[in-house]
Amino acid sequence: MRSIRTEEYLARQEAGRHLAAEAGLDGLIAWSRGGSSQDGYADVYYFSGYYQHQPWVPDVPGLWRAQGHTAFLLPVQEPAILLTDAGVIQDPQPAADRVRTDADLVEALAEEIRTSIPSGRLGILGCSTMAWPWWTALRSALPDHELTNADALGWRLRRVKSPAELDLLRTSGAVGVRAMDSAMAAAVPGAAEAEVAATAIAEIVSAGGAYYGMGISSGDASHTFAPSGPGTASATRHLKEGDLLRIDMYGSMEGYLFDFARTRVVGGDPTTEQREMLDAVHDSVTAGMPLLHPGQKLSDIARRCEEAMTDSAFALRQGAPDSQMGGAWGHGLGLSFEPPWVTTDADEVLEPGMCLALERRIAAPALGGANYEDNVLITETGPEIITPATHEYLH
Amino acid sequence: MRSIRTEEYLARQEAGRHLAAEAGLDGLIAWSRGGSSQDGYADVYYFSGYYQHQPWVPDVPGLWRAQGHTAFLLPVQEPAILLTDAGVIQDPQPAADRVRTDADLVEALAEEIRTSIPSGRLGILGCSTMAWPWWTALRSALPDHELTNADALGWRLRRVKSPAELDLLRTSGAVGVRAMDSAMAAAVPGAAEAEVAATAIAEIVSAGGAYYGMGISSGDASHTFAPSGPGTASATRHLKEGDLLRIDMYGSMEGYLFDFARTRVVGGDPTTEQREMLDAVHDSVTAGMPLLHPGQKLSDIARRCEEAMTDSAFALRQGAPDSQMGGAWGHGLGLSFEPPWVTTDADEVLEPGMCLALERRIAAPALGGANYEDNVLITETGPEIITPATHEYLH
Repeated sequence: MRSIRTEEYLARQEAGRHLAAEAGLDGLIAWSRGGSSQDGYADVYYFSGYYQHQPWVPDVPGLWRAQGHTAFLLPVQEPAILLTDAGVIQDPQPAADRVRTDADLVEALAEEIRTSIPSGRLGILGCSTMAWPWWTALRSALPDHELTNADALGWRLRRVKSPAELDLLRTSGAVGVRAMDSAMAAAVPGAAEAEVAATAIAEIVSAGGAYYGMGISSGDASHTFAPSGPGTASATRHLKEGDLLRIDMYGSMEGYLFDFARTRVVGGDPTTEQREMLDAVHDSVTAGMPLLHPGQKLSDIARRCEEAMTDSAFALRQGAPDSQMGGAWGHGLGLSFEPPWVTTDADEVLEPGMCLALERRIAAPALGGANYEDNVLITETGPEIITPATHEYLH
Repeated sequence: MRSIRTEEYLARQEAGRHLAAEAGLDGLIAWSRGGSSQDGYADVYYFSGYYQHQPWVPDVPGLWRAQGHTAFLLPVQEPAILLTDAGVIQDPQPAADRVRTDADLVEALAEEIRTSIPSGRLGILGCSTMAWPWWTALRSALPDHELTNADALGWRLRRVKSPAELDLLRTSGAVGVRAMDSAMAAAVPGAAEAEVAATAIAEIVSAGGAYYGMGISSGDASHTFAPSGPGTASATRHLKEGDLLRIDMYGSMEGYLFDFARTRVVGGDPTTEQREMLDAVHDSVTAGMPLLHPGQKLSDIARRCEEAMTDSAFALRQGAPDSQMGGAWGHGLGLSFEPPWVTTDADEVLEPGMCLALERRIAAPALGGANYEDNVLITETGPEIITPATHEYLH
């Protein structure tokens, strides 16, 4: 029921210990958020295969603290400990030398650290999920320890994927494609945006996956990313023939993400200007694909994409569109959205076993908006596109 | 397209300023997480009606910081400012005197604070969503300011709901009931857990709502809360006749939550022991309901529930079950899971306009698990149950 074998988790822990020692650290603290949020589970899950669904509730002094979170203590010299507030854990059990259940995750972690590593330097992975009151409490409880941000070490550990991870990314891409195709098939004139979104999400969840999120918009709001409230999509905005519908969607299988985007014109052929916009995002993103070989510099890929955009009929007619994401043409993908970033000044070099999401969105208020994004594995022989969603609905 | 009127947001801001001044603060910083996570949007959304779906991505120095988050600066004496990293915002626009878009949310907030409040004391709302590196950076950027945890002030502001909020909670409860009923109808022998979950989620999203999360488990894992990976539910665990299926599910309409739970026996009648467990969670939770009147002490409600559990056939046969949530029988509900907690030592008193979720879960490894939970508005004349999901599937 878990595709990653226990041996692989233990090897990850050993690799983590090795990098920690190399960095002069006495151990690592991985800290993660669960509770049905999807943007902060990577670090604990990478080491242990464990995610917990109990949601976060506000701290109540004396009763509980940091509910909905997990911690993984990985001392360089001592056994690894998973800390959770969940009572009984469903099989498969976490890959850890010991599991401790405690309602006060901060105090329990401080205790375990004092026992395993009486004093020293600890690196924190998953800093974005550790709220400042917990960090402050941890620092007070550990006057003999230095706590530092070690996220860069985590990215380094997770950058190149194992064969089992690559298979999960392929599985995830295939589920994402089914979800996207079914959403686009549901996007007929008269359908509400929310029905389209629901179709996609049901496909992901039925497959045993996790829905992470989406940016969906259409019609005269297609230049925006998504609605301005917590709801996924509008139940009152009904698609009309000729509307642009853009979907940027992310989800996971066993934690491994797909993250890709498509845009279509609802119920008919695009106008010339719509077609030029659809072509511009598609052609600029796919222009970078043939370069996705081991040894290739990311900056070269970004430049190739940039040139294709500059040369597009859209840019020639409308001017070069504003970019999002600081001009990045994509990013690493695995248990999270992650480095490297595909920018024109990125000097990182591709390695076999990496996974990238290449993407571009145009937001042109007068005309609308369009996205195109694909996920690609870097193999010894070149790119393997794992999100081959039907191109038919492009035009 | 937004049920809360602009006047109500402005009144909330005025109430926030008033409480801040009373507490000796020069202003409030509401900080929230968006990006399709659902457990951290309340504070900014409460003041502004704004949620942003762009997901969190790791900070890249010089390019962006705290993506996927929003901030709302509410000085006691100066205009209110919403800060977001989203480019173009879909209508309706946020209720704020000014909106600032910036890729570095931390630096932008520090700048706005220095301009509006050159020095002084600021209270932070939404502390659990402010990661320690951002807090550290904010502190360094604001040497003339004191930053304190003001979450208690936020809970106080949001404790009693307005008529418009109560209507949204009713709407949300009704959507949740439809989702639960459709999930339970799909829970036939042979169906996978994941199909049941997908049915419920599609119902919520189709209605224009947000799926927040669920704890679903069945059969010989029904004593656990949920699977141990990020996926919502198992696609390989197929329901069998006689299996217990428990669902604790939460979602929202315009940000206002439902959070309730039901348990059924799949495809047949419960055994005596199953029936006693189902009755125990149902009867103990509903025993507290008649007490839900203005003026009632929460501790009395918890004690009434506790007595019903102690007297249940289940407890008499199996012994008193372990409790979760530190023994609490429920909690406040609104834009989040929130205080007050319904415990036997809670001396808070109910007021009209509050919303509570009363709940209990039994996890008995040898027998299985069961949940029962309802959401209740406290009206002048007593309890109004807003999650009246069919009781038929109880037995």
